[in-house]
Amino acid sequence: MSVLDPLTIADPGQLTADLVHLSTIVDSTVPGWTRQALTEADVVGRHWVRARMAEAGLDAHIDGAGNVIGVLRGTAPGNSAIMTGSHTDTVEGGGRYDGNVGVASALEVVRTLRANEVRLRHDLIVVDFFSEEPNRFGISCIGSRALTGFITAEDLDRVDSDGVRFADELVRIDIDPSALLSSRMDTSRIKAFVELHIEQGPYLEEQGSDIGLVTSITGIKRFRVAFRGRPDHAGTTPMNRRHDAGCAAAGSVLAIEQIASANVDGRGTTGLVTFTPDAVNIVTESAELWGEFRSPDLRWLDDAGTEFHSAVQREGASRSVEAQLDWLPSEQPAGMDDRFIEVTAREADRLGLKQSRLYSGAEHDAAIIAKKIPTAMIFVPSKDGRSHCPDEFTADKDIHSGANVLLNTIITLDRELDFA
Amino acid sequence: MSVLDPLTIADPGQLTADLVHLSTIVDSTVPGWTRQALTEADVVGRHWVRARMAEAGLDAHIDGAGNVIGVLRGTAPGNSAIMTGSHTDTVEGGGRYDGNVGVASALEVVRTLRANEVRLRHDLIVVDFFSEEPNRFGISCIGSRALTGFITAEDLDRVDSDGVRFADELVRIDIDPSALLSSRMDTSRIKAFVELHIEQGPYLEEQGSDIGLVTSITGIKRFRVAFRGRPDHAGTTPMNRRHDAGCAAAGSVLAIEQIASANVDGRGTTGLVTFTPDAVNIVTESAELWGEFRSPDLRWLDDAGTEFHSAVQREGASRSVEAQLDWLPSEQPAGMDDRFIEVTAREADRLGLKQSRLYSGAEHDAAIIAKKIPTAMIFVPSKDGRSHCPDEFTADKDIHSGANVLLNTIITLDRELDFA
Repeated sequence: MSVLDPLTIADPGQLTADLVHLSTIVDSTVPGWTRQALTEADVVGRHWVRARMAEAGLDAHIDGAGNVIGVLRGTAPGNSAIMTGSHTDTVEGGGRYDGNVGVASALEVVRTLRANEVRLRHDLIVVDFFSEEPNRFGISCIGSRALTGFITAEDLDRVDSDGVRFADELVRIDIDPSALLSSRMDTSRIKAFVELHIEQGPYLEEQGSDIGLVTSITGIKRFRVAFRGRPDHAGTTPMNRRHDAGCAAAGSVLAIEQIASANVDGRGTTGLVTFTPDAVNIVTESAELWGEFRSPDLRWLDDAGTEFHSAVQREGASRSVEAQLDWLPSEQPAGMDDRFIEVTAREADRLGLKQSRLYSGAEHDAAIIAKKIPTAMIFVPSKDGRSHCPDEFTADKDIHSGANVLLNTIITLDRELDFA
Repeated sequence: MSVLDPLTIADPGQLTADLVHLSTIVDSTVPGWTRQALTEADVVGRHWVRARMAEAGLDAHIDGAGNVIGVLRGTAPGNSAIMTGSHTDTVEGGGRYDGNVGVASALEVVRTLRANEVRLRHDLIVVDFFSEEPNRFGISCIGSRALTGFITAEDLDRVDSDGVRFADELVRIDIDPSALLSSRMDTSRIKAFVELHIEQGPYLEEQGSDIGLVTSITGIKRFRVAFRGRPDHAGTTPMNRRHDAGCAAAGSVLAIEQIASANVDGRGTTGLVTFTPDAVNIVTESAELWGEFRSPDLRWLDDAGTEFHSAVQREGASRSVEAQLDWLPSEQPAGMDDRFIEVTAREADRLGLKQSRLYSGAEHDAAIIAKKIPTAMIFVPSKDGRSHCPDEFTADKDIHSGANVLLNTIITLDRELDFA
């Protein structure tokens, strides 16, 4: 165990300034601080990150999957590495902190190591992962999936609602789809991944904690439900003769809410509902809804799925409406590395920061990376638990605390990790 | 009371042929037999009806409100009249019978009167009313409202979802908006209105009846509900911390269904629902729904409105979501003329047709006209109760029976009505 005093980041003001600068690279035609993957703002943002990495003394490049990667060479023989980073893309109408905090903090960690002439034994790989947020082709965490080999040719053939192919959109922003498929890293040489991120929920604020230590990342079961009834005249068709697909959909929306509300860690959300035809004087013929369940508990997720399937059948059958439930690509819950959690806990203690353990209800690149590399995540508080909206806010002091924990966790992992 | 044998229509095949011809004048770019008001097909259809009226020996013109009007002069002094007719516009994706049956049958009634050299004492006014179906500006029964003076300058200023003004669309199809406002008829000289229409519901078929005698036409309470919650992250926001506008809307859709299902004559329909944003990983911030309640019983309609208001407040409050219920222009229930119902019943008896009395759950020009002129409606069966869809069907023999009842009702009313 290290007996040295913990370091603190060299220039907190510079970290804040980097976040402010990123918040100026946005698509001003949509609300919020919007820098969605595959847009011009995203391209400009990632090139700015690459330049900033180079200024910080990293060997920086953008890989075949659109990831911005910077490497600080280690001193020890062999080629093992520690990885850190997050993403700079946002959802439409998103905020200034989700993802950005982890990338900007990693830059400041590198600058601090260099300013203090701390040489790590391992290579330190800093990544700004490409397209973490669910994009309009229905895929998230593109960059981390590509790094770990979880992207397929089938993914590239996905189309958005305008019929545009994902692969063609990649080409448009200078990403070669075949390079994306082949840009897998040799993950056997990477001994640890640590991601700093905002909590995006209310827990740390409620607990009065400075730092959250993530125990696991939620699993997600995504689904689409289609109901097909009959378009009848809204005035002449008695209620008991209707095949109202809209009411079956509404009942299913409430079932999602009820099933998830019965478990403290359960989440259930309906994202959108469509009624066809959209006429007030015609009983709704068909209705569609898209939604998801989340939990860190795989068994609960499976049970929720079974219960929802029954609810959908019941809502359809009671109205003589055909019901079709399709499960979409989902995520398994991802456990974080217990040894790393202890290292992070110790470093937070040494920095005098109050910490809480919690699971992440949000998806993260860390959940993908954890399939191949032992991983830890550090959270900082989100004001009122708000995220994915312009009101998303984390105080500078909390971001600086998070960067300090990230810095010292990396230093300690570097000292304590064995070389393979 | 007449002691003559009832007449029957001169050429049932011609009536069928007219309906077939109308079914060829459609907008082929949309499904079904679509001839929506304000479209090219509608304009062509109404000019065809005018020509057909002229061929049948009527003085025919299209009035300032787009109504096609044909007059068969009566023999008696004074200027009193009997009016009959319906409409030839359809909903999008509609059928071949709704409205068309009443217009085509009225033409065959005129041809039959002439073929049999029956001279009425009253003028007989045949009308193909303009834009009976709810159009994209949210107004229905334009022609009958204009004839009876219920159109206002405010109606002309309504805009569709593309921001186009109703008045500008009227100009595009050669209707002068100011003429529409001033095309009110002198209704004091019109002593009776009789409309033949398909039932659009399952009642006559279930009863095995040939003819329906309408006792009243449903009232309609239309509404819009807007919910405003908070856009939170779908993974990090616990269920009990959400302000999910979508769930409040879904609960309200079910409330509409439940309230209407509790009364045998009650109808409640949600026409469309919109969730914003339409993203699966964000709790729905705002949701909107449009719907209606219908009943021939004004007291039930008012009670349903009160109960729904409570339900909307409850669905919003239990999720800390703001709820706003707005009532839109509605229709009062319209009673049909009891004396005319008896005349129609007698004529159906004389023709050996099995009859049932029922109320109309659908809106009709007759409900507007009844505010100024004593009115009767004759229904013919709809297969499986289907309407406002391509499957809408009424057998030729039923249409011919309906035309026969219309013919003899007009003849008897002409004989029995006093002149003012």
